[in-house]
Amino acid sequence: MKNTKWYIEETTENEILLHSLREIIYSGNSPYQRIEVIKTGNLGKCLYLDGKMQSSEMDEFIYHEALVHPAMFLCNSPKVILIAGGGEGATVREVLKHPVKEVVMVDLDEEVINVSKKFLPEWNSSAFNDPRVKLVIDDARAYIDRMKDYFDVIIIDLPEPTEGGPAYLLYTKEFYRKIYEALKKDGIMVTQAASTSINNLFVFVSIIRTIKEIFPYVKPYIANIPSFFAPWGFALASKLINPEHVDFKEKLSHFDEKLRFLDFDAYTSMFSLPKHIKKAIEEGGVVIRDDSPLSFY
Amino acid sequence: MKNTKWYIEETTENEILLHSLREIIYSGNSPYQRIEVIKTGNLGKCLYLDGKMQSSEMDEFIYHEALVHPAMFLCNSPKVILIAGGGEGATVREVLKHPVKEVVMVDLDEEVINVSKKFLPEWNSSAFNDPRVKLVIDDARAYIDRMKDYFDVIIIDLPEPTEGGPAYLLYTKEFYRKIYEALKKDGIMVTQAASTSINNLFVFVSIIRTIKEIFPYVKPYIANIPSFFAPWGFALASKLINPEHVDFKEKLSHFDEKLRFLDFDAYTSMFSLPKHIKKAIEEGGVVIRDDSPLSFY
Amino acid sequence: MKNTKWYIEETTENEILLHSLREIIYSGNSPYQRIEVIKTGNLGKCLYLDGKMQSSEMDEFIYHEALVHPAMFLCNSPKVILIAGGGEGATVREVLKHPVKEVVMVDLDEEVINVSKKFLPEWNSSAFNDPRVKLVIDDARAYIDRMKDYFDVIIIDLPEPTEGGPAYLLYTKEFYRKIYEALKKDGIMVTQAASTSINNLFVFVSIIRTIKEIFPYVKPYIANIPSFFAPWGFALASKLINPEHVDFKEKLSHFDEKLRFLDFDAYTSMFSLPKHIKKAIEEGGVVIRDDSPLSFY
Amino acid sequence: MKNTKWYIEETTENEILLHSLREIIYSGNSPYQRIEVIKTGNLGKCLYLDGKMQSSEMDEFIYHEALVHPAMFLCNSPKVILIAGGGEGATVREVLKHPVKEVVMVDLDEEVINVSKKFLPEWNSSAFNDPRVKLVIDDARAYIDRMKDYFDVIIIDLPEPTEGGPAYLLYTKEFYRKIYEALKKDGIMVTQAASTSINNLFVFVSIIRTIKEIFPYVKPYIANIPSFFAPWGFALASKLINPEHVDFKEKLSHFDEKLRFLDFDAYTSMFSLPKHIKKAIEEGGVVIRDDSPLSFY
Repeated sequence: MKNTKWYIEETTENEILLHSLREIIYSGNSPYQRIEVIKTGNLGKCLYLDGKMQSSEMDEFIYHEALVHPAMFLCNSPKVILIAGGGEGATVREVLKHPVKEVVMVDLDEEVINVSKKFLPEWNSSAFNDPRVKLVIDDARAYIDRMKDYFDVIIIDLPEPTEGGPAYLLYTKEFYRKIYEALKKDGIMVTQAASTSINNLFVFVSIIRTIKEIFPYVKPYIANIPSFFAPWGFALASKLINPEHVDFKEKLSHFDEKLRFLDFDAYTSMFSLPKHIKKAIEEGGVVIRDDSPLSFY
Repeated sequence: MKNTKWYIEETTENEILLHSLREIIYSGNSPYQRIEVIKTGNLGKCLYLDGKMQSSEMDEFIYHEALVHPAMFLCNSPKVILIAGGGEGATVREVLKHPVKEVVMVDLDEEVINVSKKFLPEWNSSAFNDPRVKLVIDDARAYIDRMKDYFDVIIIDLPEPTEGGPAYLLYTKEFYRKIYEALKKDGIMVTQAASTSINNLFVFVSIIRTIKEIFPYVKPYIANIPSFFAPWGFALASKLINPEHVDFKEKLSHFDEKLRFLDFDAYTSMFSLPKHIKKAIEEGGVVIRDDSPLSFY
Repeated sequence: MKNTKWYIEETTENEILLHSLREIIYSGNSPYQRIEVIKTGNLGKCLYLDGKMQSSEMDEFIYHEALVHPAMFLCNSPKVILIAGGGEGATVREVLKHPVKEVVMVDLDEEVINVSKKFLPEWNSSAFNDPRVKLVIDDARAYIDRMKDYFDVIIIDLPEPTEGGPAYLLYTKEFYRKIYEALKKDGIMVTQAASTSINNLFVFVSIIRTIKEIFPYVKPYIANIPSFFAPWGFALASKLINPEHVDFKEKLSHFDEKLRFLDFDAYTSMFSLPKHIKKAIEEGGVVIRDDSPLSFY
Repeated sequence: MKNTKWYIEETTENEILLHSLREIIYSGNSPYQRIEVIKTGNLGKCLYLDGKMQSSEMDEFIYHEALVHPAMFLCNSPKVILIAGGGEGATVREVLKHPVKEVVMVDLDEEVINVSKKFLPEWNSSAFNDPRVKLVIDDARAYIDRMKDYFDVIIIDLPEPTEGGPAYLLYTKEFYRKIYEALKKDGIMVTQAASTSINNLFVFVSIIRTIKEIFPYVKPYIANIPSFFAPWGFALASKLINPEHVDFKEKLSHFDEKLRFLDFDAYTSMFSLPKHIKKAIEEGGVVIRDDSPLSFY
């Protein structure tokens, strides 16, 4: 081995990833989780929460463009947006590329935001300073519970729920019900939805199945996020039964200067699921409920 | 850690993957390389050559369907097929799903074939016994050099060239020239083309650039192979300038029973490259030549 | 890395050891623990319980000679011996080199004994078949509680107590009291006593301190067990205040043919503790009690 | 795993050690080697050269006291001392506890000394500023070659020779000949002499055997250096046939305040080798020569 210093990430109980470690930029504990900003040899600066990669300098643009824009385009007129989680500020940055009026970002852990502002300024550039952005430090679920018929788009950008971790009850049917109610009548939700690796599809298909219990229109999609070492799942949902009159190609044409990953080809690729994944979605998974939450690794 | 026994794969000098190890099914050395068949906790049985994952029980079907069928469909009438490498026998298995007349498989290392027959029979089922299959134990390059204007389709299913390893000169312009000459006038070539991970695109774009020096029509594409822990590149090439009159959707419809990964959605997804990768292909890479071969990790 | 297959042992939360793995000879779970017999590249066959190295082909002789013979020599006439633990059978093997009448081995986990008989026959040779040996499958503490004034020597050959593991209450003052009572009036006890690595002395000195609460004569000693990757502690105790009239040199001279590690030099070395360890013993540690057991890693 | 950041040390091709990594204090390359100062969770600050642990905050005192004082005591009147290597400055520090007149320290790599002065001041305290200390930046072998009949004690404190590394020819018979000639007629040499782990004794016994070709009196000894994860070998040699009239106990009594590891018990323990190591020394090893140097891992 040429390198001696490594960051070790246990992604599942059967898989471990090592990234060569160049610099420990920040390492600390908030009341909720361990926060680390690491410079790696392959992916540049990386943010880890509780030992799990959140995003990397090299490809955070892929994750954040894939998460934000399909939902924004699917919405007729996205003016009032909620981001649940999204501590790095990159999700806000992408949202602000659209002509929105108000972006609420609710995150439990102020430390993550402070660390990101200080050590990952390239991620969030001036997003946190935009007057349209309102930062709420609160439990996302408690916050959403208080809001009714208010948002055009809700973007769920939360870490996966590990047992006892901060996101444990943020992938359940009851939570999606609250999101449904917090959205306007033609509102759109999108969430990251875990790995779609072939040996690890259960969580993804369960999230899809659970959202389908609440929303009439649900579209799973997949983007390659190299720093996650797996094709990554997302789920887009609408309160409308058939919102698909949108001309994505036309909408994307106005964003050519603003996006590095997403164009119409990338959009097409993400929403064209291979056969075995469509089959898994049809057949598999469980409905995730508050009283039987999924225990992610 | 719940597991104690692990297979450690150095994928690049900055990345290491660990797979939990359940069983050492076979471990040995041929004159050319180390051959290991391992049962892992996440991917089932896996074949490793010189410590690099070749294919896994869980997702070899993705890799082999992605490699074989686009080339076979692009060819008007694929009757005489060459597979360079392909030791596991799964590539032959996929080729035989088409009404071919002759399949030549040329592999340097008979040991890999024997180990695969014995320990990975599910991979190759009865493919090696099919009377249309002819097995040649030889250096792929030397063999191809002797053949002119003979094959309809040539499928390059070789490990990546590590310095001094058996595939060192099988990704060069000179080699692609020989392939061009071994193909009939409307012949098709396809090759696996390394990782398309964002921090690791150089090899992929160089292979594309190199093939473009020889073939008039080159189509890069990408499939997610979870066991490779990266979106994986391929390159399809034709001696015809514009072979794209093919109706892939119609052709695929006849294979519905025979394929687990590839349908028209998967096909569409593979050939729709995201913006940053198209940009890298336009701008990057080098022409790989015998006197300046790429040194993969 | 030349090797691809590894056994990973977390020795403390700050240290991990990897041994190259040649062969998985046995891997299973008993009702009490995970049992693994592994062939490694550096130490030959190794027995692991719950992921912790118990002994290795290369140096089990050091551990077992160091554990058994000092206690046997310190005893005037060792005839009736108890071994608590010692599943591999190597401790019995060493005891039987002395002219004993009866050896009781009490081990909770019959599976460990069966696995050792089957896969580590070199460890125990014919020890288990000797008519003087009586095997009791029971909790060591429960068994010792029933015996009073019976044994000449009691040898504690137990894994370190991890929380909830089988040996959790076998290093406490209450347990040593029971041992004291199970011994004849001039009886001797010896126990393995954990690492004496400089960053990890607390357990060792606490065991010494705890035994001193019960026994009037306590002698700590240290042997290098390379497969434990640390100088290893032991504690010898006598019910007599001053048993040290023994001529170890003379006694050892009769064992020259029978021992590979222990001679008078090795004996001298083991019982000559360096300054910083004597200081730690004088100053450090706590008395381990049933209601405040030490939590080893 | 509780920790995410690790330092990985390949000690042999069959063994890897991981230390949890708290802080990268320094990481750089000199013209000769990679130099790293790391804060670990188990051993505090550690100096690594080319990925090999040189000494740790927790136990450098053991290594340096074990290396220096036996040689100094064995010498009748140690006034002029040479240290070959010893970049950290801790060896000088120990030498200066004796009433010496002149200490020459010859080290090839000035970077190691500068890094040690800056980042490991506790190691060398004010040793480098002592007027009796003369620092020579040179190849140790070239320097020693120029000196004849000059030193009372020569202390070899060099990393193990890896192929092509800076210490490759510093453990050969030809080198020991030069040392012999550089010493006064009753001069003493001592060298660290690699691991004495049971699976790894060959280098140690070969160094002993090689020194015996040159010096009439050679005494191997062993100290436990926990941060080396192995019992560590040393070799003491004298130009006198029988220098053992020294009363070590008396000499040590004057150093009670100055030493943390070494007292008469520790001295006794170090020089009392166990049976299997004495046997290996008698039977094993090779004479290391310039034209057949040992290739350490």
